[in-house]
Amino acid sequence: MKRKVILGIDGGTASTVCICMSLTPFDQPLPDPLPILARAVAGCSNHNSVGESAARETLENVMADALAKSRSTRASVQAVCLSASGVDHPKDQHHILTWLREIFPMHVRLFVENDAVAALSSGTMGKLHGCVLIAGTGTIAYGFTEDGREARAAGAGPVLGDWGSAYGISAQALTAVIRANDGRGLQTTLTQNILDKLNLSSPDELIGWTYSDPSWARIAALLPIVVSCADAGDLAAINILFDAVHELASSVKAVVARLELCGEDGKDPFPLVMVGGVLEANKRWDIGSEVINCISKDFPGVLPIRPKVEPAVGAALLAWSSLMRQCHQEASTS
Amino acid sequence: MKRKVILGIDGGTASTVCICMSLTPFDQPLPDPLPILARAVAGCSNHNSVGESAARETLENVMADALAKSRSTRASVQAVCLSASGVDHPKDQHHILTWLREIFPMHVRLFVENDAVAALSSGTMGKLHGCVLIAGTGTIAYGFTEDGREARAAGAGPVLGDWGSAYGISAQALTAVIRANDGRGLQTTLTQNILDKLNLSSPDELIGWTYSDPSWARIAALLPIVVSCADAGDLAAINILFDAVHELASSVKAVVARLELCGEDGKDPFPLVMVGGVLEANKRWDIGSEVINCISKDFPGVLPIRPKVEPAVGAALLAWSSLMRQCHQEASTS
Repeated sequence: MKRKVILGIDGGTASTVCICMSLTPFDQPLPDPLPILARAVAGCSNHNSVGESAARETLENVMADALAKSRSTRASVQAVCLSASGVDHPKDQHHILTWLREIFPMHVRLFVENDAVAALSSGTMGKLHGCVLIAGTGTIAYGFTEDGREARAAGAGPVLGDWGSAYGISAQALTAVIRANDGRGLQTTLTQNILDKLNLSSPDELIGWTYSDPSWARIAALLPIVVSCADAGDLAAINILFDAVHELASSVKAVVARLELCGEDGKDPFPLVMVGGVLEANKRWDIGSEVINCISKDFPGVLPIRPKVEPAVGAALLAWSSLMRQCHQEASTS
Repeated sequence: MKRKVILGIDGGTASTVCICMSLTPFDQPLPDPLPILARAVAGCSNHNSVGESAARETLENVMADALAKSRSTRASVQAVCLSASGVDHPKDQHHILTWLREIFPMHVRLFVENDAVAALSSGTMGKLHGCVLIAGTGTIAYGFTEDGREARAAGAGPVLGDWGSAYGISAQALTAVIRANDGRGLQTTLTQNILDKLNLSSPDELIGWTYSDPSWARIAALLPIVVSCADAGDLAAINILFDAVHELASSVKAVVARLELCGEDGKDPFPLVMVGGVLEANKRWDIGSEVINCISKDFPGVLPIRPKVEPAVGAALLAWSSLMRQCHQEASTS
């Protein structure tokens, strides 16, 4: 019999990754290492960024590429989980599902989820339970209960309060330079460090630099400078990072409280998957650890997880878990 | 002898206004009412927005229009003061001066200033001394000493800390709605009021609305809703307005302190000209009055002025004052 496979796709604004994983028997635990057959990479598949037909073409190509690399065919696919940024609404979900269904026959299980879902799954190895905190260029906290309820906090972009993101931290750092320069704020080593990095000669030039390009990622890239300055004891930088820690912890706490992930007494254990450049900074000033400290004061049961696999693998594991549950249900009702 | 005139121009992003004023004898005080002969209005003349040749054409046309309406000719012009947004650098100033010099002969006095200068002058009737606080879509504080030193604070746009502006206040209000909705923040009446105003049915829809159009003025237009909610006692709205008051006062205090406008003991009187929609809200919750309260705690000599004439008249008065000083100097040295 031909080998059966699962496709897991992480569709982001920067790139799209597709994993092809072998479908292992459900009566056995997942093999270690995971039975990953192939990995393919393509460009942006966020339909909000590149438009629908380009996004669709990218996704078709990356799936075909992963199948070819794993010497599999479309007919061997049992499930596809596409976890993509920009899927924020049931309408987006339905739209993409309809289109995937045109490609894959009815027996293939299809899942379309927000990119936060793959990130959670990459930490919980396919189980949709607990909370994921993503803090990269943007930030979002997303939570799931075992009975299928979900909640999110933040994720509304830089204008609408994503202050714990790399963009938010970096914009605060730029602002601290402007404020130090005009006398509203503390003098800070951020000034010289940021000007050096950007090859500018005065804080006034930061204004032109900031508005010359609307890309959030360009500003977010200043994060390492803020962490270095905080490491060296700069008070303005330290204040910015503590504010960010408070913001990130507050997103998680809002999700945990709404879903009662911590149980009625607030002390039950729950997984918190932590993903993204802001949380991975492992300098002396470790934002991720500070966030965990802040959350554990209110919710001592928090179990932080730093995923060992990438989100596309998380997406594949999610499809695997779902197929396994379906298989067990069918077995118990037959 | 043909009547001599002065042109005062307020060149903004929304519109450009040119005032033609009769040049009255310098040995007499300015007449009341002011000898304004004509007023002409045109579109945007910010060279950063519409490009240089369009800005230049708009300015030429609006001056020609004001001269025609006042039955004057270009030959009767003794001074031109152009106060324009986007003039932030000596290089901008020099560039526009060179161009104005192509139009007007050498004996005509030319002044090119930031738009804040005309706003200050509209409150001080042409005297460049004191501080002006502008809080409209954006915000800036600008100060001048009698011996020609100047300083500014804020004015770096929404990404770089102009939080006391109408844009800043409105963005905070939108953020408060998102935070109330996802459990991070207080419940607030801003939610229903903003959704009603924008014809949206849920806070999630605010995200699409916010990023669908990059215009700062569109978001800034929500200011009256925030003031109304604060008037009705909404705590989230009140907190936002107090933060804005603190930000606006801090810009003024930074300028006053750097220029020592308050004298060495911090108690000398100095004019503070207050301009823009944020400061003109005269509801029960009066942002302008709160800003003055906040400043006068540190600088009891603050003398708030709400201008009775428009900035273009301020520009004309600035040119008038400068010609008068020159005339007196020439008289005293002859």
